[in-house]
Amino acid sequence: MRCAPTSETKALSETKSPIRRFSGFRWEDTDLLAYKDEGSAPFKAITRQTLFRRSDLHGELRYFEMAPGGYSTLERHEHVHAVLILRGAGECLVGGEVHKISTNDLVTIEPMTWHQFRANAGVPMGFLCMVNAERDKPQLPSEEERRVLEADPKVAAFLKG
Amino acid sequence: MRCAPTSETKALSETKSPIRRFSGFRWEDTDLLAYKDEGSAPFKAITRQTLFRRSDLHGELRYFEMAPGGYSTLERHEHVHAVLILRGAGECLVGGEVHKISTNDLVTIEPMTWHQFRANAGVPMGFLCMVNAERDKPQLPSEEERRVLEADPKVAAFLKG
Repeated sequence: MRCAPTSETKALSETKSPIRRFSGFRWEDTDLLAYKDEGSAPFKAITRQTLFRRSDLHGELRYFEMAPGGYSTLERHEHVHAVLILRGAGECLVGGEVHKISTNDLVTIEPMTWHQFRANAGVPMGFLCMVNAERDKPQLPSEEERRVLEADPKVAAFLKG
Repeated sequence: MRCAPTSETKALSETKSPIRRFSGFRWEDTDLLAYKDEGSAPFKAITRQTLFRRSDLHGELRYFEMAPGGYSTLERHEHVHAVLILRGAGECLVGGEVHKISTNDLVTIEPMTWHQFRANAGVPMGFLCMVNAERDKPQLPSEEERRVLEADPKVAAFLKG
């Protein structure tokens, strides 16, 4: 899998047709990007495609996809995540609860709620995520905050993968 | 099919679980709404579900679904539509061009561009549409504007259905 590490803005603004065709969970004129900078936070086997981002849209729509066994960063932030599972199944941690999720389910991540997505059902899992264009940066848990989460055996098992 | 005609705000704010399960192109705790008020504009066999709308989100994510033969209103507005086809196939008019569209294709509706979606492929067609929470009202074409669009035989055939 190839990932373009840098700005998708150029590709989006150069798009001429109003239609971007879908094929194999890729979209025309839409770069396959690294999820985050390597080493900036823990994550595994996850990519990002920015489907809609432009200055006259106040929301952004991104598509994240994890290979089987992949996971997003355990993090929290002030901004809300509005998620629709577009492909496959897996689980997510939202606050102190682990939830099974399947294609087309909706997930609301409230402000400052610890969350992580895991493709732990043996299939790729991809999801749309709408966020505010202007938003704060994610926060990683401290050792103490992680210990508090792991006090629940179900959460500990989820985080262990 | 039952459509609740009124405010979906109550249902959304009362949602307790972060997960809203999908089943048969309906979502838990999410009302099936009329597309628009009857008689306010031309449309046919189309419903609306507001998937994400809340005061701390600057975008809204809605799901519109047309039965076979259904269509949205031919209209334009200053705000952008960011669309992902979630179900089925059909066609859309964007400006002066008719495009075939299929599941997971993306459609960008630029400001003040005439547009209409039609489930004219014999199957239901449903699409996600992200918009700004604050946006202008749609405009309908004048008779003259409609004549200009219909001067293209392909557009005329599309609009005739």
